[in-house]
Amino acid sequence: MTKTKVAVVGSSGYTGEELVRILLGHPEVDLVEATSRQLAGKTLAEVFPRFGHHKTASALRFSDSDARQVAHEANVVFLALPHGMAAEFAKPLLFSGARVLDLSADFRIKDPNVYREFYGHDHPAPDLLPRSVYGLPEIYRDQIKGAQLVACPGCYPTSILVPLRPLIRRKAIDRKTILVASMSGVSGAGRKVEANYLFSECNESVRPYGVAKHRHLSEIEQELSILADDRVVIQFTPHLVPVNRGIISTIYANIASNVVNLDPAVMFRGAYADEPFVRLLDGERLPDTKHVVGTNFIDIAWKIDKRTNRIVVMSAIDNLVKGASGQAVQCMNLMLGLPETAGLI
Amino acid sequence: MTKTKVAVVGSSGYTGEELVRILLGHPEVDLVEATSRQLAGKTLAEVFPRFGHHKTASALRFSDSDARQVAHEANVVFLALPHGMAAEFAKPLLFSGARVLDLSADFRIKDPNVYREFYGHDHPAPDLLPRSVYGLPEIYRDQIKGAQLVACPGCYPTSILVPLRPLIRRKAIDRKTILVASMSGVSGAGRKVEANYLFSECNESVRPYGVAKHRHLSEIEQELSILADDRVVIQFTPHLVPVNRGIISTIYANIASNVVNLDPAVMFRGAYADEPFVRLLDGERLPDTKHVVGTNFIDIAWKIDKRTNRIVVMSAIDNLVKGASGQAVQCMNLMLGLPETAGLI
Amino acid sequence: MTKTKVAVVGSSGYTGEELVRILLGHPEVDLVEATSRQLAGKTLAEVFPRFGHHKTASALRFSDSDARQVAHEANVVFLALPHGMAAEFAKPLLFSGARVLDLSADFRIKDPNVYREFYGHDHPAPDLLPRSVYGLPEIYRDQIKGAQLVACPGCYPTSILVPLRPLIRRKAIDRKTILVASMSGVSGAGRKVEANYLFSECNESVRPYGVAKHRHLSEIEQELSILADDRVVIQFTPHLVPVNRGIISTIYANIASNVVNLDPAVMFRGAYADEPFVRLLDGERLPDTKHVVGTNFIDIAWKIDKRTNRIVVMSAIDNLVKGASGQAVQCMNLMLGLPETAGLI
Amino acid sequence: MTKTKVAVVGSSGYTGEELVRILLGHPEVDLVEATSRQLAGKTLAEVFPRFGHHKTASALRFSDSDARQVAHEANVVFLALPHGMAAEFAKPLLFSGARVLDLSADFRIKDPNVYREFYGHDHPAPDLLPRSVYGLPEIYRDQIKGAQLVACPGCYPTSILVPLRPLIRRKAIDRKTILVASMSGVSGAGRKVEANYLFSECNESVRPYGVAKHRHLSEIEQELSILADDRVVIQFTPHLVPVNRGIISTIYANIASNVVNLDPAVMFRGAYADEPFVRLLDGERLPDTKHVVGTNFIDIAWKIDKRTNRIVVMSAIDNLVKGASGQAVQCMNLMLGLPETAGLI
Repeated sequence: MTKTKVAVVGSSGYTGEELVRILLGHPEVDLVEATSRQLAGKTLAEVFPRFGHHKTASALRFSDSDARQVAHEANVVFLALPHGMAAEFAKPLLFSGARVLDLSADFRIKDPNVYREFYGHDHPAPDLLPRSVYGLPEIYRDQIKGAQLVACPGCYPTSILVPLRPLIRRKAIDRKTILVASMSGVSGAGRKVEANYLFSECNESVRPYGVAKHRHLSEIEQELSILADDRVVIQFTPHLVPVNRGIISTIYANIASNVVNLDPAVMFRGAYADEPFVRLLDGERLPDTKHVVGTNFIDIAWKIDKRTNRIVVMSAIDNLVKGASGQAVQCMNLMLGLPETAGLI
Repeated sequence: MTKTKVAVVGSSGYTGEELVRILLGHPEVDLVEATSRQLAGKTLAEVFPRFGHHKTASALRFSDSDARQVAHEANVVFLALPHGMAAEFAKPLLFSGARVLDLSADFRIKDPNVYREFYGHDHPAPDLLPRSVYGLPEIYRDQIKGAQLVACPGCYPTSILVPLRPLIRRKAIDRKTILVASMSGVSGAGRKVEANYLFSECNESVRPYGVAKHRHLSEIEQELSILADDRVVIQFTPHLVPVNRGIISTIYANIASNVVNLDPAVMFRGAYADEPFVRLLDGERLPDTKHVVGTNFIDIAWKIDKRTNRIVVMSAIDNLVKGASGQAVQCMNLMLGLPETAGLI
Repeated sequence: MTKTKVAVVGSSGYTGEELVRILLGHPEVDLVEATSRQLAGKTLAEVFPRFGHHKTASALRFSDSDARQVAHEANVVFLALPHGMAAEFAKPLLFSGARVLDLSADFRIKDPNVYREFYGHDHPAPDLLPRSVYGLPEIYRDQIKGAQLVACPGCYPTSILVPLRPLIRRKAIDRKTILVASMSGVSGAGRKVEANYLFSECNESVRPYGVAKHRHLSEIEQELSILADDRVVIQFTPHLVPVNRGIISTIYANIASNVVNLDPAVMFRGAYADEPFVRLLDGERLPDTKHVVGTNFIDIAWKIDKRTNRIVVMSAIDNLVKGASGQAVQCMNLMLGLPETAGLI
Repeated sequence: MTKTKVAVVGSSGYTGEELVRILLGHPEVDLVEATSRQLAGKTLAEVFPRFGHHKTASALRFSDSDARQVAHEANVVFLALPHGMAAEFAKPLLFSGARVLDLSADFRIKDPNVYREFYGHDHPAPDLLPRSVYGLPEIYRDQIKGAQLVACPGCYPTSILVPLRPLIRRKAIDRKTILVASMSGVSGAGRKVEANYLFSECNESVRPYGVAKHRHLSEIEQELSILADDRVVIQFTPHLVPVNRGIISTIYANIASNVVNLDPAVMFRGAYADEPFVRLLDGERLPDTKHVVGTNFIDIAWKIDKRTNRIVVMSAIDNLVKGASGQAVQCMNLMLGLPETAGLI
């Protein structure tokens, strides 16, 4: 049986490298192209010594192919480009019939005005927005299966939307009171060469940032509003903590006034018992990034605080796996009719 | 002029070591005794190689003196003992006329029933509770000056009460909506030899803990209620992050419905412009633990989120300095009529 | 085809957990038993939340089975017990016909007198010593294939012996001048609950230890002497550095006086070109623990310093994988006639 | 009494910031100027929030003054510029009569040919080389007192030369066998914005670098040769470890063949008993960077290995204090006739 040919465009960042890692180990696809203007000509093994032993990584060289060339080589293309550039690259790819999984923000926001508000420039391909599916399998599994263009969610949104979905759907919480404090490892900033992300600036440092209007807010609120069938506005504060990978999101909301005896365990199990990548910690355990790093799992725990009538839901993911590249591959598996966990467990 | 003689009881933990560090460098006091049952007989320099060069540290040996012996040697005594033990030790000290600064929780909670609820045992000296002053100079400066017994605040409470005080006093926020997400370095757990705090368990790990009822909640709510002159119940979640020292508290509250055009900068400056250890970051900067570690400062910043009508206030302290030993010395300075910053800047 | 049944004895430490991780993912074996006196009754998934999703981990409970019971369940047994205890446990296992891979030091040292000198007590089963094979496939592959008892090498020895083997065998260096400075992550100390290994004691700390006579010296010198067919004594200093995993060994030796135009690349390639887990960095690159962590690879680089007539060889491994559990599984693969890389790449 | 006016030129890097920290707290000098082309116009407090409370830091703005302007303001000038630029800046300063402490490599190497060999360009002011004094007080205290131009030693050289000096002077070791393995925190690379020093590249990473010919070798060998009165060539390998600050140097040498019963404790005490910043750990303790970080101390320990007839000497310093800015201030104290420890203890 011939394997599906896949390409990664913009492979020099952390999500690109993580895509390469997962795809090299994936039993059902062949990584046939990895582009990077900056690294063109070098083998994957030279750039990522972790894969030094791998035959494909030792043979395959980064190219600086354009969209047509990529579409010629591969049937499935992952875009790990900066926002703005991703949409430009996607246009000819889609025209050529390739299936596209975009890890940038370009196709996440349905409303071009919101995109402009949060990303500071006009959307480069607003006509494509209606065709994109938001790549969160726990919500949009069926749509992803048939999609040609998948907008892979941001890392914070993944860590927030999965835990909130059952609470919103079941109207268990007062939507006006949703508040999220998140903590992220430094790889979440990408391989950006800025003084802020130097070792000596991040190590032994904890700091909030992006207060009060982080870009991810746009997609979180869009998706919560769809789930609620009503406009949802939330509070969200990210913090940078000195780990390489991992996000903890601690989510608070008032229990809805008409809800009596909320049993979150029943609700979460009802929603997620069969999800291959959702792990419910419904005993005393709380999430810890170290148990999810390197995996595509999201761990979820909760507590009801009777003193305040709030529910506190906590989640942990690896920002580069379930928060980016792993989830993209999970979507690809769905698009190709492969087992959803292929290459991921 | 003879210097005041001071002692540290229970010097083997991180707050004890930090007290020793500050007191050895303090120009107006002499550290004459440091007790530790476990380390008795060794010099301070042997146990804390950092102070290897210091004459007092090289000469002074840990003792296992009891309260009477300590009271005989020193006029001011810092207690860095576990809760329960501290109150027992304080009784004879106070009887002997020594001035006592207790870093445990024993004298923080005014209501013995609340103490039992949060600490799991009866208070060992409930009759002393009315005599203790809560050692937060930004609130109780005048009372501290005349106190014989000071209950030094916990680290989380310090990071939360100082930022909230002006907001509560000015009735700027809806007290029912106060919610705090805090992140603490591992020294906050003390020098506890437990598997949970091993390097390999904390490094590359971020995790919530103590959800939903951390012990510090009792003193935070007690003090907020006093400030508000009404019962205040808050939401509080601590998280453990892999740094040695430092706490970030991110505090949220709805702006009170009758408040128009809240100007936090004016309010915070009005409250704290003259405070020697409060730094207001009233521009674009946000707090970062790395700027306060090793100091007695609390850095405070804020943002109003018009979308949600909330104020977000963020603070940073060193949990072992402003959150424990530095603040204790600040209180001692007040008690002795010394410059408040002596030995601390 | 029925899979081979394997057991892990003493599974609560870091090497035990790593064995469980690798064996759960191994395509050719079934983990049927994991013992731990301390954890008996709990499922693997409860204790190691990383494996929370895994069916075997969710079903299998830690037992406190004795050797006979273990031998009854499994054909291959990994011992992750403290030294001394391992030999005691191995005796009845071997008698029952099980194949045993011991990760302690108990069967590494051929000479019971050397064992006593370095480990401080008499060897519990000196009669078994001649039957054990030192489990370093790069040296003893053929003997491992037929062994019933394999003594898996220590982490430092692995990082030192593999690079030195070709240099010793080819008599390229002056054996009297071998000197090794190693740096290890904290998991190398095991899950020992000691103050020395608390986060706050290891983070922001770099320190030599075990100077001048670390226990691993005994097995390093034994194996080098065998390779040289002469007594070899070396200098070895380990250092503790604040990473979870990984060892760098920097090895120095004078080039032998009769050697002209030593070409290490040719020599290393001659020795290791076909080794599945040895990666030779024969360009400008130097080893970095981050490229081997989580893998069974050893990365090796070298430089000749003409100024001093020395060769400097540097290696990197993951102390828990190639330095312990991964190598043990590599040996098991050889013993069972499986592909050597099964479950490891 | 008027305080001496001092300036820091090139204050935006880590050594510049550390100079600012020490000089702001120094009781005998006034920091009157801090230059930084990049930061000109901002106050020190804005750039370094740690000093936010300090009056001078809040008032003083970074300037982009040239050498003449600096010489007009200050009597003592610290240069924290890249090599090459420092020598250019020093020329007019010296001509104006200012006393100069240069933290770059420009005036460390006496031989312009060696400078060119190691630094890749011609020396910009070879005529000044004879006037410079190597700023290691433990060796050149008397010359520093009278110097107008001090070349402050590199961090690695400081950690190596202080321990080796007594051994070389007393001819206790075979100079041909000196070998040094050093480990440094990431601030040693300066505030260089390069991908190599990003948090995610350094955290959970240990790696050798600069093999076999690090630039610091030139000054180490120069100074050892002066001490030995003969040409000394050594082996030196630095490693990067994930801490902010701190260097461990582990130094090996064969004990000289004609030396019997070497007693290093007597020798080190003879050399350093009165040195204010040398701490001899002559019991069982070994150096640990965490005990020296933030201080100007160098901690030294040693072991004789009878098996190999080598001595192993280990040292720990803070690379930014004793390895750079603290040592520069120690030199300044000597030049100005101040107590040597002023501002440093």
